[in-house]
Amino acid sequence: MEIQRAKGTRDFLPEDKILRDNIINTIKEVFELYGYNPLETPVLERFDILSSKYTGGAEILKETFKLKDQGGRDLALRYDLTVPLARVIGMNPNLKMPFKRYQIADVFRDGPIKAGRYRVFMQCDVDIVGCKDVRADAEMLNIAKDVFNRLKLDIIIKVNNRKILDTVMDYAGIEKEKRDMTILSIDKLEKLGLKYVEDELKNNGLKKKQIKDLINIITIKGSNNEKVEKLKKLLKNQEWVKEIEELLKYSDAEFDVSLARGLSYYTGNIFEVYLRNSEIKSSVAAGGRYDKMIGSLIGRGEYPAVGISFGLDVITDAIKLDKKLEFKKSIAKVYVIPIKTFDKCIKMIQSLRVNGINVDIDLMDRGISKNLDYADKLGIPFVLIIGEDELKKNKLKLRDMKSGKEEMLNIDGIIKKLR
Amino acid sequence: MEIQRAKGTRDFLPEDKILRDNIINTIKEVFELYGYNPLETPVLERFDILSSKYTGGAEILKETFKLKDQGGRDLALRYDLTVPLARVIGMNPNLKMPFKRYQIADVFRDGPIKAGRYRVFMQCDVDIVGCKDVRADAEMLNIAKDVFNRLKLDIIIKVNNRKILDTVMDYAGIEKEKRDMTILSIDKLEKLGLKYVEDELKNNGLKKKQIKDLINIITIKGSNNEKVEKLKKLLKNQEWVKEIEELLKYSDAEFDVSLARGLSYYTGNIFEVYLRNSEIKSSVAAGGRYDKMIGSLIGRGEYPAVGISFGLDVITDAIKLDKKLEFKKSIAKVYVIPIKTFDKCIKMIQSLRVNGINVDIDLMDRGISKNLDYADKLGIPFVLIIGEDELKKNKLKLRDMKSGKEEMLNIDGIIKKLR
Repeated sequence: MEIQRAKGTRDFLPEDKILRDNIINTIKEVFELYGYNPLETPVLERFDILSSKYTGGAEILKETFKLKDQGGRDLALRYDLTVPLARVIGMNPNLKMPFKRYQIADVFRDGPIKAGRYRVFMQCDVDIVGCKDVRADAEMLNIAKDVFNRLKLDIIIKVNNRKILDTVMDYAGIEKEKRDMTILSIDKLEKLGLKYVEDELKNNGLKKKQIKDLINIITIKGSNNEKVEKLKKLLKNQEWVKEIEELLKYSDAEFDVSLARGLSYYTGNIFEVYLRNSEIKSSVAAGGRYDKMIGSLIGRGEYPAVGISFGLDVITDAIKLDKKLEFKKSIAKVYVIPIKTFDKCIKMIQSLRVNGINVDIDLMDRGISKNLDYADKLGIPFVLIIGEDELKKNKLKLRDMKSGKEEMLNIDGIIKKLR
Repeated sequence: MEIQRAKGTRDFLPEDKILRDNIINTIKEVFELYGYNPLETPVLERFDILSSKYTGGAEILKETFKLKDQGGRDLALRYDLTVPLARVIGMNPNLKMPFKRYQIADVFRDGPIKAGRYRVFMQCDVDIVGCKDVRADAEMLNIAKDVFNRLKLDIIIKVNNRKILDTVMDYAGIEKEKRDMTILSIDKLEKLGLKYVEDELKNNGLKKKQIKDLINIITIKGSNNEKVEKLKKLLKNQEWVKEIEELLKYSDAEFDVSLARGLSYYTGNIFEVYLRNSEIKSSVAAGGRYDKMIGSLIGRGEYPAVGISFGLDVITDAIKLDKKLEFKKSIAKVYVIPIKTFDKCIKMIQSLRVNGINVDIDLMDRGISKNLDYADKLGIPFVLIIGEDELKKNKLKLRDMKSGKEEMLNIDGIIKKLR
């Protein structure tokens, strides 16, 4: 039998996992600073919930992993964390609104494998349900700002409003049934360029005049203010004006009328976060307001909502490329090599641990050189070599693995140095 | 459409999730203090790996969730974290040995639903691969001791050795093909009692004399030492003696010859951790040495291994029953109620967050009583009420929600108080 992973999945060996955990903790910390509470939902969901017409749409359903339990029930692996959130709202009518939650967990999509596309990947979502106020939209952008600030990544936040896109469709006279498709095309402008989008719109049956009008609007230039003023003059429906103006007031963002976001359920402000001056062109976080989805799915009530989702994989790639942050390769701070002193060392080692120092120790009575090689390969920064004599004198040899420097220290000195 | 969860799954709403995260962090911290590194493997595995004859056996395979990807490949949801660890060892021949890793993640079993049995549940596993030394076995027990010490749960650790069980089988003359079954029966002694086990063994075709000999051994009484000495006299094979004696030397445990552990792949010391004086009778952690499984599965090399797994659900139940530890209901430390001062508060609130204080804030201009009710229901310990006047004077009203006491403090005072 060949020993293989399932296609499109990954393992994260310690060095990568430590980096991932660091990023996750940073994101989690910021979510909590803004008062969002954690929520956990299961990987397995009922297929009928995930395939509701109010959720992700046909594109996403095509890539849903389906399975049955022993009772023959139709189940699926969640493809996002938003539909499970809606289900939780539906099943807990007494939840206090607004409900502010975050969830950091794997989602699953059985799609084609390309560079950077996997079938299991982690999403870091933060959402507020039950609040129509644009301040909530702005809070999402401020969370993003704080997260990337802590990760030392330089970002640009682009925002738009779905009501503008809808109004643009009216303005350009695009038929209702062609609008979802048109939004998917517009969404590709940033990545694939104007020519590609024009061709795709043409292939999808839009008239030359329609395409021209559409492109005129979505490529509008100027400062945020200038864009708002230009659009105000061009578009009849003005509901979006207050929403986008307030969002821009409370946050640092660039108004970009070409921003579309793939998902069909957005109803108001939408946003995408990109890296400035980076090889990485895809967005590192994205989200928006979806005021109708939850109420429609659960069949009662009004649950205006807004959220943002951080892409752990692309953020990890960016941090690796960027190299500004340095992360440890191994969680152990010190590796202890007892030279026939194992039994006598145990208590001392326990005192290091009580002081919060991560200690690995040779359990196998290996020789010094083999042990030094082990600590070096694992990237453990310090080694403590403990012979009979050192123990008696309470002077232990601490070796800095990077510089090769050795110091003789007593146990308090070691704790002070390593903590 | 009815809004439901998949059968046998659970949501963890904030209050429960905060408690779970606290327990997970405690376990993780101890794993890291002992120098174990994190590993992440995917939920989805190839079915051929999980169903190998060297892994969990027929019992567990019956409960494995199976599915196919779009390419028609047979996949499954992992039922434990040990087989994926073996696969990782197999796919990474250059991993430095011993490989010490932990993994805290969901596993999936499509079994019957009973009280306390779920189809998705979290395991917290720590294992060391590539080390035959019994000190590694003892390290597992010391990790358990430290984990439960931090969780303020009083435990008793029971240990046994599979070689004793094998020798006992010889001693009692039990046929090879009846041994796995017999071990499964013995494993039920603690939970279901002597009478139940005797009946089950009889039903499984064991002779009266065989059952008597078996019961004689597994119910042996006395101190650890007395048990070892009695068994030494009764049993021919003595390989287990050194293993169990060394384990007992390096750890606080009770030698219990009736301990069996369900899984067939154990080869040496095995252990289960129980709560002392608790309503909860099932084990809260369990593990053992499995020196053959990894090498057999991956078809090369020798990978002696030992590990222990902590049951998050049962530990959570125990902590809830025990009530010694108190956990917060909401991660927010303070809820800010701006009285028409939202815009002016933002900067001040940001300074609280920079100081590491989790702040929730009313985004919707609700009235004070509605806001106080919200903070109370969410269990947020402090509320900050900010009117124009208070802002001008830099004296803000901080209300302790538990005592109802109110204080007027400037921003530094608030930071000091809440941090």
